[in-house]
Parts: sequence; C-alpha cells; structure tokens
Amino acid sequence: PWTFLFAYLLCICLSVSCSDSDETIVYSTPLRTIITGMDYGDGVLVVGHKSPDCDAVLSAMTYASLLQRMGINAEARVAGKVICEPRYVLQEAGIEAPAILDDAAGRNIIMTDHSEFAQAANGMSSARILHIIDHHGTGSVTTPQPLFYYALPVGSTCTIIASMYEELGEKPTATEARLMLSGILSDTDNLTTTTTTDTDRRLYEWLLLQSDISDVETYYAAMRKARTSFDGMTDEDILFSDYKEYEIEGYKVGIGNVFASDELGVEELCQRMRQIMPAVRAQQGLDMLFMMLGDRQANVTHIPFCGDGAREAAEAGFGASANPEGCIVTTYISSRKAQFLPAITEGIR
Amino acid sequence: PWTFLFAYLLCICLSVSCSDSDETIVYSTPLRTIITGMDYGDGVLVVGHKSPDCDAVLSAMTYASLLQRMGINAEARVAGKVICEPRYVLQEAGIEAPAILDDAAGRNIIMTDHSEFAQAANGMSSARILHIIDHHGTGSVTTPQPLFYYALPVGSTCTIIASMYEELGEKPTATEARLMLSGILSDTDNLTTTTTTDTDRRLYEWLLLQSDISDVETYYAAMRKARTSFDGMTDEDILFSDYKEYEIEGYKVGIGNVFASDELGVEELCQRMRQIMPAVRAQQGLDMLFMMLGDRQANVTHIPFCGDGAREAAEAGFGASANPEGCIVTTYISSRKAQFLPAITEGIR
Repeated sequence: PWTFLFAYLLCICLSVSCSDSDETIVYSTPLRTIITGMDYGDGVLVVGHKSPDCDAVLSAMTYASLLQRMGINAEARVAGKVICEPRYVLQEAGIEAPAILDDAAGRNIIMTDHSEFAQAANGMSSARILHIIDHHGTGSVTTPQPLFYYALPVGSTCTIIASMYEELGEKPTATEARLMLSGILSDTDNLTTTTTTDTDRRLYEWLLLQSDISDVETYYAAMRKARTSFDGMTDEDILFSDYKEYEIEGYKVGIGNVFASDELGVEELCQRMRQIMPAVRAQQGLDMLFMMLGDRQANVTHIPFCGDGAREAAEAGFGASANPEGCIVTTYISSRKAQFLPAITEGIR
Repeated sequence: PWTFLFAYLLCICLSVSCSDSDETIVYSTPLRTIITGMDYGDGVLVVGHKSPDCDAVLSAMTYASLLQRMGINAEARVAGKVICEPRYVLQEAGIEAPAILDDAAGRNIIMTDHSEFAQAANGMSSARILHIIDHHGTGSVTTPQPLFYYALPVGSTCTIIASMYEELGEKPTATEARLMLSGILSDTDNLTTTTTTDTDRRLYEWLLLQSDISDVETYYAAMRKARTSFDGMTDEDILFSDYKEYEIEGYKVGIGNVFASDELGVEELCQRMRQIMPAVRAQQGLDMLFMMLGDRQANVTHIPFCGDGAREAAEAGFGASANPEGCIVTTYISSRKAQFLPAITEGIR
C-alpha cells in the first residue's frame, strides 16, 4: 500500500503540474524556430524610433533581452537622447540608457515601434532589417529580403514583446516586467486610451504580478509627471522630446508636440521654441516646422511655425490668424495624427 | 488498496494525456485573441497577388477557412484568372476556384503572399487592409491604421498558414492540408529551393500526414507539368500566367515569364506573344513590355519586347542584337528578380 500511496501522491503532483499547462506554455513554438533560424551575422542592434518615448526605448531593451535568452547576439540602442518619461523609468529601475545609434547603414537591425524611414535612425534605408515589431500601421520601410515582421493592433509594442515572452515560455525578470509594463502604461495612458485592447489588459496584469512595482497608480502618476518635466533639458531637448517628420504634398514637414507644465507655461514655451526653430529647420533640412504646445488647464494649443508658406498653411488649416508673438492659438488639440496632421495637410493644399 | 490502484491508474492516464501537450497545442494563444478581437465590419475578403500562382491562391483559401473556424466572416478571392498549376491543384481536390476580385477599393481586405500595390488587385490602395500574411520582404503597401502583419522568412506563405493552424490548435481537414502542402510544393520546388527552411520541412511532413495524398513525388511531378501546360489557355492567359510590373527609372515596365513545353516550342511561343504584346502594353498602360521565354532543353531564353526604347534597353542589358523575328536570344535565365531585372534596369539606364 505504501508503494501505491507514493505512486498516488507522485501522480497528483504530476497531474497538477500538467493541468497548469493550459495556462502556460508549449516550449517548442514555431516562433522560436523561426527567430533562432535566421542569420544575424556578427550580431544585431534593436532600436526604436527617433525622439524615443517609453514604448520605443523599453520595447527595444526588452526584445534584445528576449533574443539574448535564445542565444542571439542582440543589443539595444536608441535613436536619440533618452529624456523625460523613459529617463525616469530607467532611473527608477536603476539601469543605464542604451547607447545612441548614430548610423544604421550597413548594420543588422531590428526595428521596434516604428516602420517609417522618416522616424528611424539615420542610415536605416541602407541597413539590413531583420525583424520589425510594431503596433502601428505599416509605413514606408521596404526590404529587399524576406524578414520577420510582426505587427499587432494593440496599445503598445511592449504588449507584443510581453506576448512573445509568454508564447516562448520565457518568464520575465522583475526588471524586464517593470520595463514592459512601463511601456504599456505610457502608450495606453494606464489602459485608458481608445487603442487599449483586452490583450493589453491581460498582459498588464501578468507583468504587474512579475514586476516589483507595489503601487502602480502612484508609479504611473510619477511617470506622467516626468513626461512633462523639463528638468535638465535644453530647448532643443524639449523640441525633440516628441517630434516626428512627415512628407506632405512634396514638402518635408516637422511637427513637435510639447505640453505646458507647472515649470514652464505655454507663453514662455512658445517664446523659447520660436528662438530655436529656424536653426532646427535648417539642421533637419525641413520646408516647414510646427510645434503643438498644449496647455491642458487653459484648454488651448499654441502653434508656432517656421518656413516658407508655414504661416499660410497654419492659418488656413486652423482657421485663425497668428497673434503678435507669432503663434496660432486654437482650442486644445490632443492628437498629432488624428487632428493636427489632417488640418495642416489641408492648409498646405 | 483498490482505491489506491484505481487512483494510480487514473493518474497514469492523466499524466500520459498531459505529457502529450508538449507535442500539441495550447488553445488560448494570444494569436486567437488578437485575430478575433479585430473589427471585420460586414466581412473580409482574403486575396493573393495578381497572376495568381499556387501559393497566392491556396494561402488565401486556407487562411479564409481558418478565419471561418474562428467565427469570422471571411471569403477567399483571387486577383486574376486561375490557370496552369493552381487550376490543376483545385481540379484534383475537386473544388472550384474562388471568384475574381475586380476592385478592392473600400473593401475589408486581407492580403496573402504579397505586400506590393503593383502586384495587388485593382483598387488595393483604397482598401481597408486588416491583415498581411507574407513570406517576402516588406513592399510598398502602407496602411493608416494598425493592422495584423505577420511575415516570416520561410519558403511559402502556405507554411505560415499551416503554422497558424498548428498554433491555434485547428487540425486541418484532408483538403485543407492538401492545399497548403501544394502551396509549399510549388513555392519551394518540393523543398529544393535555397529559400526552404526547417519550418517548411517540418510543416510539410505534418501536412502530408493530414492530407489524402498518397504519393507526393508523383503528385508534384503532375503539378510541375501543369505549370507549363497551355491547355485551354488563350495567348493572353499565357502572357499573364506569371507576370509582374515594376517601376524602373520612372518607366512602368511589365515582365512576363513563360517556359516552352512539349506542346509549344519557344519559336511559336515568341511569335504568338509578339502578336498580342502591343495590345497588352496599351491595356496595362506600360512604357515597355518584355517576355522571358525560357527553353530549358536548348538552354536559351528568348526575349520579345515592345514599347519605345525597349529594343535599345534589351540589346544593351543583354549585350545582344535582336534577331529577324524581333527577339533577343540569350543563354538561359532562371530568375526574373535576380537576373532579368538587374540586366534590364542597367539597359534602361
């Protein structure tokens, strides 16, 4: 009977550990075979977009970690200086920001959180792009050779990276979980944006359990504060803190997006941006440069501009005349893509 | 002791059924949540590229089936008449070819086996593209909204569809397995091309077991024969049987690729193509139109041409003068992309 009892207990253990497998992972997924079967040459650099936000920095770092676990010589890079919110996240996690990738030409590259050459590190159109992991529409990037392109319509690229940890049966460390969770917090405004999906919510809960974050609401409030902190930033850092370039009707157009804060009111912000905008326009080779300077409290957005035809485009697009300080003032604009871009495109036409 | 014995046997059963799970599937994968969580409106059409080959037709059909199993109102379409090899595969399987999609504009679309507008059904740039499933480099397609883009560097798109059946725990029917296997057979030349990967080999074996194909070598030989059969085809069908368009140095250029066969020798083929090429060039709005007419036995390729500057481009690109029949004759060219395209690009310059 003791033999039976022993066998019985052993079986219970086995079946308990097995019944877990509905919740967990099959370890030999097609994904692992695909990813490890590619040729990375002497190694691959994982990099997000320019003006790096949390999702760009943290998706690159945690995807590089995931690839390293599979024996791939992968290193994270950033496509610009890490400031504001992602700098706060890295400081809290006690880790250094990745080095800046100055020139992607000729390198083996994995792009996270973007698929637009205009938003990518310099030289990207001459890079060998091996993976793209993204949660946006597909952009201007084309590749001559087959690649691993994995885009999902979810709230953040860190959600996709987390789903890959899960699918590959790789349990994130507390730090990896903290970084991926921070990417989701940032891109979904703590699960409140309209882009938030059930997949984001599920992986948020999973990451929160794995992470060492005890009070996520307090942590998110501090992240959000850091997003509009200008601590230690030059005027150029502020302008580039959330900046994207577009090709509109044949013109090269830059659009920055900055919010007024307790430290820096919208009038002072406008004045400081106007001082450096002509030099930035020349340096970036732009036809026109606009800034969206949002003031949530006053519910207005100030739009300084520079470049030939920029005044006419902004005045026509937003149906308002520039004030003596050289700004269009309009009601609050929350989205560069859904609101600003269509208006300015119309104005340029 | 009988209680223990019963429990013991029960446990053995349980642990055996559990240990299987390493080989099989977790049913609630992130993929299912992602795919079923998207908005398909009143339904979605799944379509491969123009001049449809086996991989284009069969990936669209089997992916539509997979989506239907998940409750999605998906239907397969083709972007051109189904002839040659895919027609043979469908005849053998006893199923009708999908209807032709004349205009994709304004429709909900899933693209398989391509990501180039130039190779897509008419109106694709005004479609709402929801998924792209592909095994090529990423092409000219861009989307304003986030999408599900899943590209893997494997030998055929049907391999990717098969891996999704596997990952989602959806066992293919004998017919579905036959169709996916036929796509792999066609695109990898029965696992012999340099693009063939371990993932293709593994899923080929899996599909072969599920399918009702008893002798795969004989079946593949018949497919291959059908690839160069002109049975029931008009001259236009022949010209468009493997045809792609490119933009080269600002010129719109069409390149067809047809092989001589027992039925139709290369001289007769050249004569028949030359007769219809001017009308096809006008109809497609091309600057230049070339055909690669390959004769494997004689180890030569005949190149008829039409359009302003086409003769000069072909003569310069291939370093030969046109013969009295109006063809360049050169040594055998196996690849449109790796051999013909670079030569003609050089010739046009």
